[in-house]
Order: sequence, then C-alpha cells, then structure tokens
Amino acid sequence: MTNLEQQGRAAKEAARVLAVASSAQKDAALEAIAQALEARQAELLAANARDLSAAKENGMRPALLDRLSLDEGRIAGIVEGVRQVKALPDPIGAVTKMDTRPNGLIIGKRRVPLGVIGIIYEARPNVTVDAAALCLKSGNAVILRGGKEAFHSNSAFVAVMRDALAAAGLPQDCVALVADTSRESARALMNLTSYLDVLIPRGGAGLIRSVVEEARVPVIQTGVGVCHIYVHQEADLEMAADILFNAKCSRPSVCNAAECVLVDRAVAAQFLPLAQKRLQEKQVELRADGEALAILGAAAKPAVPEDWDTEFGDFTLAVKVVADFEEAVDFIAAHGTGHSEAIVTRDYFAAQRFLDQVDAAAVYVNASTRFTDGFEFGLGAEIGISTQKMHARGPMGLEELTSCKYVIYGAGQVR
Amino acid sequence: MTNLEQQGRAAKEAARVLAVASSAQKDAALEAIAQALEARQAELLAANARDLSAAKENGMRPALLDRLSLDEGRIAGIVEGVRQVKALPDPIGAVTKMDTRPNGLIIGKRRVPLGVIGIIYEARPNVTVDAAALCLKSGNAVILRGGKEAFHSNSAFVAVMRDALAAAGLPQDCVALVADTSRESARALMNLTSYLDVLIPRGGAGLIRSVVEEARVPVIQTGVGVCHIYVHQEADLEMAADILFNAKCSRPSVCNAAECVLVDRAVAAQFLPLAQKRLQEKQVELRADGEALAILGAAAKPAVPEDWDTEFGDFTLAVKVVADFEEAVDFIAAHGTGHSEAIVTRDYFAAQRFLDQVDAAAVYVNASTRFTDGFEFGLGAEIGISTQKMHARGPMGLEELTSCKYVIYGAGQVR
Repeated sequence: MTNLEQQGRAAKEAARVLAVASSAQKDAALEAIAQALEARQAELLAANARDLSAAKENGMRPALLDRLSLDEGRIAGIVEGVRQVKALPDPIGAVTKMDTRPNGLIIGKRRVPLGVIGIIYEARPNVTVDAAALCLKSGNAVILRGGKEAFHSNSAFVAVMRDALAAAGLPQDCVALVADTSRESARALMNLTSYLDVLIPRGGAGLIRSVVEEARVPVIQTGVGVCHIYVHQEADLEMAADILFNAKCSRPSVCNAAECVLVDRAVAAQFLPLAQKRLQEKQVELRADGEALAILGAAAKPAVPEDWDTEFGDFTLAVKVVADFEEAVDFIAAHGTGHSEAIVTRDYFAAQRFLDQVDAAAVYVNASTRFTDGFEFGLGAEIGISTQKMHARGPMGLEELTSCKYVIYGAGQVR
Repeated sequence: MTNLEQQGRAAKEAARVLAVASSAQKDAALEAIAQALEARQAELLAANARDLSAAKENGMRPALLDRLSLDEGRIAGIVEGVRQVKALPDPIGAVTKMDTRPNGLIIGKRRVPLGVIGIIYEARPNVTVDAAALCLKSGNAVILRGGKEAFHSNSAFVAVMRDALAAAGLPQDCVALVADTSRESARALMNLTSYLDVLIPRGGAGLIRSVVEEARVPVIQTGVGVCHIYVHQEADLEMAADILFNAKCSRPSVCNAAECVLVDRAVAAQFLPLAQKRLQEKQVELRADGEALAILGAAAKPAVPEDWDTEFGDFTLAVKVVADFEEAVDFIAAHGTGHSEAIVTRDYFAAQRFLDQVDAAAVYVNASTRFTDGFEFGLGAEIGISTQKMHARGPMGLEELTSCKYVIYGAGQVR
C-alpha cells in the first residue's frame, strides 16, 4: 500500500466519523482551528518564509511571489474565513423531501456528506485552510494536494489544523496533505478510486485539462471562463460601456471576467468608440474582427481566429460585430465555455430569450459577469465555480459539497 | 471527423433546440413516438426476428433469448411506458430558488436539461425506447449504444422514433444510435468529451467497471449491489425471515436483491433455522461463516472470502453471525457497495443509528431492499440506480436527468 493509499484509507475512516458528527462538534473543531492558527502564527510565517526564499532563488515573478506570501494581516483574513464558515448553517441532515408511499413505506431524502474530497490546487496557500474549513463544515474528509511552491506553508497549515482537530475530539485524518508534490502524486490522486468520492481541481486551464484527461475518480470541473458581453441593439449604451468596463477591467485574471464583446451591427458605430474610450483608461488591447476594426481604426488590432477562444486573463478584449441576436447566441454557443454570459438590452423579449437560449452556468441581463461568485450569489462561501453540468453548476457552496441518501422507515413491507 | 463525432455534433445541435422546446412540443413528440411504434409494429418484429435468429445460431441461452425477444404484448408494454413518461410532469424550467441580493440583482436557479446523454447498455431492446423517452421528456438529446445482439431491433426502434420526432417538428437527432457495436465504438463514446455531457452505463459489473476505467466524460455509475439484511437481536424474527426471503428470492438477478444476511449472535441459533426453512422453498444455497455453519450444519456450505464481496445474482446467499451492531455496521462498510442496506429490529435507537451510520443510497428499517426502484420511490420512472454520490444517488428519475443554470436579472449592476 502506497503512502497515498494509506492516506486515502485513513481519510475514509475519518469521514465515517465526521459524517455523523454533530454541528456543534464540527463548529467546535473549526473554532479550535481558528484559535490554533492565531496561536501558532509564528510557525506559519516561518514556514512561509522558507517557501518564499526558495521561490525567489528560482526567480519567481513578483505577482506570483505576492500570491504566495503570508503576513499577519493575511493570516488574520484566513482565520476570519474559518469563523465565517463556522457561522454558516450546517447543510448536513436536512431532509429535502419525505413522503409516505401507498404501501406505507415512509421514504425520506436526507442530505449527507460526499465522503472524501480531493482538491488539487496551485500556488495560493490560503486555499489550504479555506478548502479544509468548507469540507469540514459539510462533513467531508479532505485530501489536499497543493503546489510545490507552497509546500512548507501548506504543511504548516495542515499540521496546525490536524492538531486542532485532535484537540476537538475529531480524527486528525479529516484533513490531510499529500506529501509528494510531483506530477506522479497528482496522477495517483486522480486515480484513487477506492477512497476518493470526488476530485475538485482549482487552477488554470492546463491543470483542469490534465485532470479531466487523466482522472478516473469523479471530477467537478471548475473555472475556465471565456465570458461574453453582448450589446444588443436596444441596449442603453452607457450602461453597456459600464458593464463591459467592469467585466473586463475590475479583475481581469479571474474566470468571471469578460474576454469578448459582441455588438449588434445597428449600434456598433455608436457603441464601439464609447467603449474604447472607457477601456483605454486601463490600456485594454482590443482585438477586433474586420467590421469592428473599420470602426475602431488604429485603436484596435485585427483579431486572429484563436482570439475568439482565448481566456486572456489580462487587459485584452476580443471585439466582434454581429448581425443580430441569433448570430450573437450562436457565437456564444460556439465559443463560450459555459461559465457566465451577459446581454445588455432594454428589450424585454430579447432579455428573456437570452436567458432561455444561452447555455451557461450564469446568464445575465444588464449586469456584469463578475458577479458569478459564491459570496455574491449569497451562498456564504465558495469552493470553486463549476463549469460542468453534472452535480453542481456555477458557484459551489456547502450544499454542493453534499450528496443524499434515502432513509426508509418500514413496518415489514416486502415487494 | 468520425461518424461518432458527427453524431455527437448533430446531437448537440438537436439538444439546443430541445432545451427550449415547450412541454407541449415534447409531449406531442412522445405521443407521435407511441403511435408510430404501434403503427410500425410489423417492422419492429421483423427486425427483432433477425436478431433472434442470429442469437440462436450463436447458441444464446434461453433466458437471454427471452430478454431479447419482442412480441405484440411487449411492444404494447413499451408503448404504454412511453405514454407514462409523457404523463409525468415536465421537470424543466422549475425555478428551485430565487432571491434578491442586497445590490438588487435578482438571482434565480432554473432547472435545465443536462444536454447530450450517452447510454451504453446490453441486451434488452426495450431500454432503447425507455431511455429515449426519459431523455426526451427531460429535454436531453441521447446517443444510444446498445449491445450487438439487439442491433437490428434497436435500429428499428430508433428509425421509428426519429421519423416520429421529425413529424412532430423536433430534430430527429434528438435520438441517435451508434451504428458500430464494436468495443472500440464504446470506447470512443466514453471519450466524446466535446459533445457528451454525461454517460450512463446500464449493465453488469464488467461494463460499469470498464466505463469507470476508461471514460473521460462525466459518468453516473449504476447498479452494482451487494446488499445486506441485518437481523438485529431485537428483531421480530418472523418479519426478518419474510424480509430476507423477499429480498433474496423475489428477483435474485436484480441489483437491489440481497446477497448477504448478517445476524446478531444473540438470536442466530433461533433465526437461522427459521430463515433456512423459508429459503429452501427456492433451494437457496447458503454460504456460511464458521459460526453460522455450526448452527445450520448440512443445510449450508462454508463461505470462501470472495463470497462476502460477490453479487451472486441467483439463489445464493452469504450468511454471517456478528457479535453486535458495531460489527454489522463495520462489515457493511467494508463489503457493501453503497446500494441498499436493511436492518430488521424493534429497537428504536438501533434503527436510527443504522439510518445514520450506514453509507448507502438507500437505507431501510424493517423493509426489503427490493424497494430501491424509481417507481416504488414515487419518481414515476427510472433510468437506473446510481451507486455514486456525485450528482444523483439511488433511483434516478427525470429530475436526475437535469442540471441547473443561474438566471440573473440586473439593472446595470457592476462589481
């Protein structure tokens, strides 16, 4: 039995205990974790310093170094996050429907944990604690496999959490970290079918793709977003420019940012210069189709075919003029990733048809795609944004980390 | 582009149309299918005769020949099934929650189809129509890949359904059959990630295993059941014998049949002879552990280790004496497949603990495991029984063939 299989078996055992733990026990463990993270801050910062110095030696870029680094303020934020998760309602145990059948059987559908959740993620060490807290609250054991750049930080976080779990009377194997950060260990986790109920990759398109290609355990795909803002001919063009500016520029690195604007031919000559003026505040590079280019002139570059399918993740925007609503919806069907799509319009029927016909996790009328987020949607927390249709779609909160079981009260019935 | 990829693309296009079809349109198509199956019965029977004569030449066993064969009565049953599905409520379009956020965004969660569903199944040709009707009602296009033994029957069913779809004004590509029944075509379907949203295998353990091993599209595992009846020391022993007899003998080939009885030591000497007397009506072969063997004597054989993990599918039952509740629950955790598990007891607290602690799709108190079924659970229909925890668990009806999307009504909000 490999180390990972041993971790898997231990997690499965821990999950059996956690599945029947009371809300009070789970909340006590989360409070113990919060307090231990505060008390052992020096240890966490020392571990992080080791990661940072190795990263600097390896020439890590400043933006990534910033994501990797912890300080007192960031640790306080992480602790606050744990207490927020603790304060959420426990999703486990709710009976979502119950009925008495003609033969007298009473059949209820009860919400239960998924069991053991694997999470593969990249650099940010805060994910280690966020994900563990969400899994714990929803009664799931978690096996974490973070990036090698954050290994010492992650190890320190997990050591603190395991000690706190034990002190709170829950199995420390409710939270485990894969000690090996090689490519092979990730692959082994993706194939741990005997012990993992679900695997959630959190990271860039490359990570997601490799998990989908290689995993034999059930996967929830997250977070690749080629999102569109469609400016309908009946749009309030000022509103459209505001929404586009926000969707592109407020945080271009995230998955709910817009990558492409579609504009109806009837308003293109009016809208595009207006939008360009807003977007140049952030020096957004525009990559335009022929028709948009004719309007924008030197303010844009010609788009190449790959631009229509690219999650730029920076201040770059693809721009296309469409003939009408149908062309816009067809274009989104062909090039969208099913994440978040928006129409800007005053036309009631165009709005309703867009909501009906566009196939994405979140479909917006007259609002920025940037709202696709567990907190903004009122879920209280988020472990990722699912872009698949099975199990969960859109922002995933605590309920999306649960399954169900049927509980049946009989009186000797046979069939 | 391969034939299968072309089918995938056509199904995806058809799914876009079907997703926004009204309930009336879908019901009209189901009625057209029912009428066409009645009108073209001769064609269906002729195709089935070709399958049957080939199967006889290949020496197919009588039980399997019976499953393969169609007659007027069976076609009438299939048609009746289509009309039952038509009569069910349309699951699509329900808004399962909706709320206004502090910023004024109105966010609703709307039930939508999954998109394109693949179904891989074995001999029974009735699955072709049942599955297509359920997918159609729930707004999903379906790509069917049946067993080669039923190929002519399946082709005839699909031809009739496609014609009826076209006559009812829906795309005929809502229902498609993979024309190639080779091992390779199944593998290609399992990897059709660009077009398939979900793959549901229906068949024996070997098929399910190969799909889990090889598929890169999201899979819903169905139907492997090593189910237990646990006779607690406080059981009504007559009731326990009735339930055990029913769970083992009423239809031993199905996945919700019991494969193993666990009995508390305190009542083993009293219960086992009683049970054995009932089970011998059907000449059930008992495979017992040492302690049970000492009680049953010549009426049982010694169990071998594999017996505890085998879905016998016939009149064979594993029998084990356990020390107490804990040993029973641990044994089920180690050897159950998470399908259906039952306790027989008069003890209120033992019943509740069993419901809490046993991790299975359906957990019973004082009833036969044979009730795990979409019709028995009141879902109105069933496309299979999920034994995984993601997306759906237990019997899957129309709702389990759906996903959701968030629809957001804004008034210019930006983040």
